[in-house]
Amino acid sequence: MEQYTGLIQTLTNCASACEACAAACLKEDNIMHMRDCIRFDRDCADICTQAVKLLHRESTIAKQYLLLCEEICRLCAEECGKHQHDHCQRCAAACRECAEICHQNHEEILQA
Amino acid sequence: MEQYTGLIQTLTNCASACEACAAACLKEDNIMHMRDCIRFDRDCADICTQAVKLLHRESTIAKQYLLLCEEICRLCAEECGKHQHDHCQRCAAACRECAEICHQNHEEILQA
Amino acid sequence: MEQYTGLIQTLTNCASACEACAAACLKEDNIMHMRDCIRFDRDCADICTQAVKLLHRESTIAKQYLLLCEEICRLCAEECGKHQHDHCQRCAAACRECAEICHQNHEEILQA
Amino acid sequence: MEQYTGLIQTLTNCASACEACAAACLKEDNIMHMRDCIRFDRDCADICTQAVKLLHRESTIAKQYLLLCEEICRLCAEECGKHQHDHCQRCAAACRECAEICHQNHEEILQA
Repeated sequence: MEQYTGLIQTLTNCASACEACAAACLKEDNIMHMRDCIRFDRDCADICTQAVKLLHRESTIAKQYLLLCEEICRLCAEECGKHQHDHCQRCAAACRECAEICHQNHEEILQA
Repeated sequence: MEQYTGLIQTLTNCASACEACAAACLKEDNIMHMRDCIRFDRDCADICTQAVKLLHRESTIAKQYLLLCEEICRLCAEECGKHQHDHCQRCAAACRECAEICHQNHEEILQA
Repeated sequence: MEQYTGLIQTLTNCASACEACAAACLKEDNIMHMRDCIRFDRDCADICTQAVKLLHRESTIAKQYLLLCEEICRLCAEECGKHQHDHCQRCAAACRECAEICHQNHEEILQA
Repeated sequence: MEQYTGLIQTLTNCASACEACAAACLKEDNIMHMRDCIRFDRDCADICTQAVKLLHRESTIAKQYLLLCEEICRLCAEECGKHQHDHCQRCAAACRECAEICHQNHEEILQA
């Protein structure tokens, strides 16, 4: 799995940023406007965490899973990016970076 | 695992009720008052789901895990029970039933 | 989520069958030949469990996730189907049924 | 969660080492002797991963969960420590370190 160290680290960071963002959103005064953010955060955290497990296992389905990861990361980045809370901006950045690296790794595999 | 069929079913029901309750709470108009409910729902759903996995695996740590399950189920039942939404009342009932069966199964083991 | 009750039940059954099969494979005398079965069982159990969570949450990405679910269920059914252990045959049947219902639900959405 | 950065990192490392060890054990020639190692690895990986989620959420039950984490880490370290494979030795070390930091953090809380 040495070749995936960077990918795994980025996925782990993204999952952490999403969990932290969801927890922080739940405490915000304007929680009414954070509903979608919380929803995407949860899905993105869970899916990135699962991707890490599949990569460690060198799962047959890992690469296909990265496509899905990329998709949820883009959706979560788009939603989080709308809000000015620090945790949202941090999360949006982590999701964008993660979407990018998922895309790159998926491409590599398709060409293999 | 046949001896745990009822326990596994109850844990699964509880996890489902918690996931459904969290999702429904996120849509409520009075979401301001549902923060703690959402938080407990998430933890309870995740912990009950993990308990099911450990039981299927006949894990050494499964029984000890049930103690924790019982605890989070009681906390979640108490919080959900405060709210009149149908999903909260359903969730509180599922959590209470689950806490009870976790308690029973843990006791059995301690006596073994 | 009432419209997904059957789907959620089938996914839950599949995850249970996979967890149970992996645990039983680890105890088999011919564990040498069960490696791939254990690997697919783990991935399939985890992915089906996650699919249930996404359906409860009415996640934007749930339907897309079902495509992946279908794929891992087919892979797991194919591998488990090669082995004569009862737990493998039960798991293969649960995976085939799950792949089918994932396929149907994904199709419905695409037409929506 | 800044005060838990080290704890979260150690739990994440431990979960990774356990996932990697389980995957590597499944490929070993002497897989017959690695059954318990695979079983503890799986439980330890799942439980440490869940602990990270609870810490990010500042869950009411997080500290209690660390007790359980410490327990499964000790069990996994003991089993992995019996085997000379590099992945087992690395996993045993990660588990021991994780058990220690879980213990410390739990103590702090009890005194609070």
